[in-house]
Amino acid sequence: MSPDAVDARDAPHARPAPTAPHALDTLFDPRSVAVVGASANPAKWGYWLASGALAGRARRTVHLVNQRGGGLDGVPFLPDLGSLPSAPEQIVVAVPPQQVRPVVVEGLAAGARCFTVITSGGSDPAEEHELAALVTAHGGRLLGPNCMGVVDTTTELRLSWGDFPAGSVGLVSQSGNLALEIGRLLARAGQGFSRFVSLGNQRDIDAADALDALIAHEATRVVAAYVEDFRDGRRLARTLAAAHAAGKPVLLLTLGRSDASGRAAASHTGALVSARAVVEAVCRDTGALLLESAGELVDTAVLLTAAGERLGRVGAGAVRGGEAAEPSAAMPALRVAVVGDSGGQGALAADTLAARGLDVPVLDEATRDAVAAHLPGRRGGGNPVDLAGAGEADLRTYARITRALLDGGDTDATVLTGYFGDYATANPDQARQECEVARELGEAARNACRVLVVHTMARDTPALTVLREHGVPVYERIEQAATALAHAARLQRGTPQPPPPLPPRSPARPLADGDYETVRDLLAAHGLDFPAAEFVTTADGAVDVARRRTGYPLVLKAMGLAHKTEAGGVALGIGDETELRAAFARMRAATGATRYAVERMVAHPHSVELIAGVRYDPAFGPVAMVGLGGVTAELLADTALALAPLTPRRARDLLLSLRHAPLLTGWRGAPAIDLDAAADALCALAQAAAEHPEITELEVNPLLVHPGGAVALDAHGVLT
Amino acid sequence: MSPDAVDARDAPHARPAPTAPHALDTLFDPRSVAVVGASANPAKWGYWLASGALAGRARRTVHLVNQRGGGLDGVPFLPDLGSLPSAPEQIVVAVPPQQVRPVVVEGLAAGARCFTVITSGGSDPAEEHELAALVTAHGGRLLGPNCMGVVDTTTELRLSWGDFPAGSVGLVSQSGNLALEIGRLLARAGQGFSRFVSLGNQRDIDAADALDALIAHEATRVVAAYVEDFRDGRRLARTLAAAHAAGKPVLLLTLGRSDASGRAAASHTGALVSARAVVEAVCRDTGALLLESAGELVDTAVLLTAAGERLGRVGAGAVRGGEAAEPSAAMPALRVAVVGDSGGQGALAADTLAARGLDVPVLDEATRDAVAAHLPGRRGGGNPVDLAGAGEADLRTYARITRALLDGGDTDATVLTGYFGDYATANPDQARQECEVARELGEAARNACRVLVVHTMARDTPALTVLREHGVPVYERIEQAATALAHAARLQRGTPQPPPPLPPRSPARPLADGDYETVRDLLAAHGLDFPAAEFVTTADGAVDVARRRTGYPLVLKAMGLAHKTEAGGVALGIGDETELRAAFARMRAATGATRYAVERMVAHPHSVELIAGVRYDPAFGPVAMVGLGGVTAELLADTALALAPLTPRRARDLLLSLRHAPLLTGWRGAPAIDLDAAADALCALAQAAAEHPEITELEVNPLLVHPGGAVALDAHGVLT
Repeated sequence: MSPDAVDARDAPHARPAPTAPHALDTLFDPRSVAVVGASANPAKWGYWLASGALAGRARRTVHLVNQRGGGLDGVPFLPDLGSLPSAPEQIVVAVPPQQVRPVVVEGLAAGARCFTVITSGGSDPAEEHELAALVTAHGGRLLGPNCMGVVDTTTELRLSWGDFPAGSVGLVSQSGNLALEIGRLLARAGQGFSRFVSLGNQRDIDAADALDALIAHEATRVVAAYVEDFRDGRRLARTLAAAHAAGKPVLLLTLGRSDASGRAAASHTGALVSARAVVEAVCRDTGALLLESAGELVDTAVLLTAAGERLGRVGAGAVRGGEAAEPSAAMPALRVAVVGDSGGQGALAADTLAARGLDVPVLDEATRDAVAAHLPGRRGGGNPVDLAGAGEADLRTYARITRALLDGGDTDATVLTGYFGDYATANPDQARQECEVARELGEAARNACRVLVVHTMARDTPALTVLREHGVPVYERIEQAATALAHAARLQRGTPQPPPPLPPRSPARPLADGDYETVRDLLAAHGLDFPAAEFVTTADGAVDVARRRTGYPLVLKAMGLAHKTEAGGVALGIGDETELRAAFARMRAATGATRYAVERMVAHPHSVELIAGVRYDPAFGPVAMVGLGGVTAELLADTALALAPLTPRRARDLLLSLRHAPLLTGWRGAPAIDLDAAADALCALAQAAAEHPEITELEVNPLLVHPGGAVALDAHGVLT
Repeated sequence: MSPDAVDARDAPHARPAPTAPHALDTLFDPRSVAVVGASANPAKWGYWLASGALAGRARRTVHLVNQRGGGLDGVPFLPDLGSLPSAPEQIVVAVPPQQVRPVVVEGLAAGARCFTVITSGGSDPAEEHELAALVTAHGGRLLGPNCMGVVDTTTELRLSWGDFPAGSVGLVSQSGNLALEIGRLLARAGQGFSRFVSLGNQRDIDAADALDALIAHEATRVVAAYVEDFRDGRRLARTLAAAHAAGKPVLLLTLGRSDASGRAAASHTGALVSARAVVEAVCRDTGALLLESAGELVDTAVLLTAAGERLGRVGAGAVRGGEAAEPSAAMPALRVAVVGDSGGQGALAADTLAARGLDVPVLDEATRDAVAAHLPGRRGGGNPVDLAGAGEADLRTYARITRALLDGGDTDATVLTGYFGDYATANPDQARQECEVARELGEAARNACRVLVVHTMARDTPALTVLREHGVPVYERIEQAATALAHAARLQRGTPQPPPPLPPRSPARPLADGDYETVRDLLAAHGLDFPAAEFVTTADGAVDVARRRTGYPLVLKAMGLAHKTEAGGVALGIGDETELRAAFARMRAATGATRYAVERMVAHPHSVELIAGVRYDPAFGPVAMVGLGGVTAELLADTALALAPLTPRRARDLLLSLRHAPLLTGWRGAPAIDLDAAADALCALAQAAAEHPEITELEVNPLLVHPGGAVALDAHGVLT
């Protein structure tokens, strides 16, 4: 799939043909490969690359190059690329830094067009860019430098270090060790990698390229990515949305959760729109899952590879160009049935699931009856179901009751928690039957087309292997099972949407400053409503504006100050000329300002103060933010973000996604505020900022929304 | 330690003498034990109890009883207790239900005074209570029935089923399977149990009894408990506080996180004070850790057993009878240094730690220099520290850099994340050195008296065993390490306090109803301030009150309604007699009320609306709650709870613990509200409810707090 694969949104159900030629085909399945810098020393990278390449000899020609000669596994090292009988489709470069460029030049001359450069250190970014440009100028591609190579377990390609167990998870990573950790955890859960791409310094092939290649890869069922540097964030966002449309969940790890507190912010918007918050918003909108750790990623990947498609809507959602519904808290939660061989474990499981937003509902009467039929005295059947010894008495009870829950149709997933999987450990006589029941559990889930998840105190027993082979994810801890289910459930919610296109830069000249007067003009021109106001330099002028234009009460504001409220530069509710003159004198003394706004004092019953802003993110461009609370916004910490510009529908959805949205829609009998007017105000703000890339931060605070409209009571900007 | 061990608060640093005789001594270390219902069939409980008892033969006399004869391991089954040569100190009962009572009677007659009844089913609660009463009337104690027995690995006592690895964690559990799960997880982490008590139906020995016995047990370093039924909650709370004073952290699991949403609430207070929230508040105040799952409990226990005392304040805090400081967000967070062999893993670790409230600070220059001295090119030394290959190049670098961090003195704990522990797997030549470095790491932490925690992708390697043997907890996932550190850090915060004593019941007669008029009288008598008001039945009466007493604007409220605002039973800001008469007519038509409050309309600049309430919890008695937002309290979800009654200091701390507390203490230059007046109002409310146990819920909403005081604008109660 090429980077513009996002056009797949026109035919969201169509998967890209797996056999279509791809620009990175020779990266993942070269017909021939040469390892330059091969070594016979197991402590060296050159050894791992060479032996990994040789492992694929049955599928491709492998050449090993080392100018000092030698050999590995019966294959002699050739002195240079010129000695090869024909051009290799891919060249893996693991030579000292100063030799990298000569090797690439030699490879290009020999006709190679795909280079994987492992070598790190010794070259500066400019040299690396130049090297990549050299390769791409020849129509080739370059991975790295400073990368850990590439693996495709479906083509026997292992050009890396360490174990890469085979499986259905594709991984793109900027950290080699993290890839190893993910591999270990996947292997312990019975899963592994389809492909692994180590990005290194991303001088040509970048995260979005690699993700595109994994999304298009038939054998890759779940795509995992660890990305530190997003480069062109909007392009990456398009890739994420395309992945969702193609039915390939993307699980993302990144950094920056602890950055926000350390960063100095020039406005509330700056403080409220951290780089991490932008990535969170992009992931929410594109249907990617932003996760915390390698463990969480693996737990979720294992569930999705085993039974992701049984959760129903993954990959089935159409991308409706910007007008799709916001993932909404009102969307019903995933319903989970819990069955345990201990009342305590079942109840703790229910709590752990509920704490992650999953629903552990009362079961339908028919399901309760079907469950109770297998319980002692035909009693029970609540949720969680307590086997109360029935499983110990007859292991088949596990399969019967779990099948009744899976077949019930009143839940989306079933969690079996506790002891199952360990009976044979204490009593080897039960080994055969326990494995048989494990198989029945897997089949019951597949037949019902529902998700079954097992949490067990057992580890590495034969029954667990059978469960995994039959598509049942197994977890050592209930919180792992619950977290994986909760993340998988998020894939169901809402319809992903690609980022909105950026408008052309405004033909007007760039803003001269970020002061209220300038920003007010810009935003008013975009349709934002402000109170009647004029700007003056003297007390007499202010009195004149009051008489002619605003009336009393009015607001007086000093211009040219960064934090006017704190500096004594705002006076509200000035009731007459005497008060106005006194306020003017006081304010001039306090601030020394030379210019003042005289503004009508606006008050509306049932109004709510919002903050609205746009921040220019280095990777993702303009990001719109709306939050509750005006001056208390940072205390309430209730904000919603989306890439700018916004459509009215999108803006409305953002408003309704606020935790305090009930205050907007008629709290306790109060009239609702004018949501359309509030949404239009957000759109105007987002559009203005998107047309003016010279604005780093743009903020309306407060934006007073009320049943009759929305009015901006103050605004300012921060320019680059 | 007896149940009144809470008097240890007078001498908080004195540990109970470990050799002091304890009422439950014969439960944990009987000189002789008889298993009644012994069996030679490994599928039966009687087998596990008998073989477990026999395992302790070197320490105590063991008798096995089965009326059908037989034997186990060369020990013949005696036909009945009468056949025993002398009275056993403990009798374990695993016979069919109808035989339990005869066995206990026979045992009492033979002189036994400690009974552990495994048998479940077949008896009703009344019979069980009677059985327990019979035993206690003879000066004996009874564990169960319906329990999984008792284990003391320090006295070779294994009267239970399953494996109980030996270690330093004492466990009290109402779920047997959960105990097995905790045992498995502890064993995988190289830890185990000192004692295990299965509570069963708690007819005599209850959770607090068992906890007391574990707290007093020298070999028990951490106490874990799974409790579903708190019985006398205040007694349990005293036990928890005593445990903290004795330097024994208590890690608690319980149920009910998903209950709140399902429970119908008769008031906002009812909705905001869930049973779970009460347990959370009790744990916070008594210094117990309320955890989510077996896994979280084990991760935290492993850290605390290994190095809990190095966190400094655990067990060192004095219990200062109700006047101790509330754990406060202002208390500095635990400072953690992170060192990783991969930049990505180090940074993800820092994020994961920070997300749990831990501080990953910039290191002091001296520490940075000491670290950088061991890094290539002497560059680096930030936090996280990136080894950048230095560890691979020389394993001893791990020990050197970690020691520099531990010795730095500018952090409280160090997390080593990534690959360490697995070098020997890929390269067996490194095995000896890796174990040596592991030992050095453990010694460095012990010498520095700091906490070192390792997260590694390795599992079950020799180096990890060495780490654990040297007191270094090892985790498979970084989030486990971070969660354990965060929980352990909570033990440091604030000073635990036992529950306040309940005041005597008020000599006044119980409240007749929960209506505003009644509740206002009660609360006013306790010193709460209300606006001037009188109660009337006619419009003329209302006009008269306005003239004589309240003036305009005033508030008119209909009495006798559950939800007066929603029913149209409240009119605010009535400005003159005409408006008053109109409002009265409208309100009478809407509500049909026969009685009305005419009240002065109170408004204060810079005021904040709070909600304050008390809820009677079945286990813990009256619980005081204060929250932000008055009518928006449920939306803001910012509440703080504590057992009633309150001291002024305690009430003040509760107010300051609110998330929105900055609104009370002068937000953006506004004057602070009168905190002392607000605290006094909470005390009055809590005291009134505590003196009137007939009140299920008591609520003041809103409580208007302002720079000049606190005034209750409405109140009501719900009676039993």
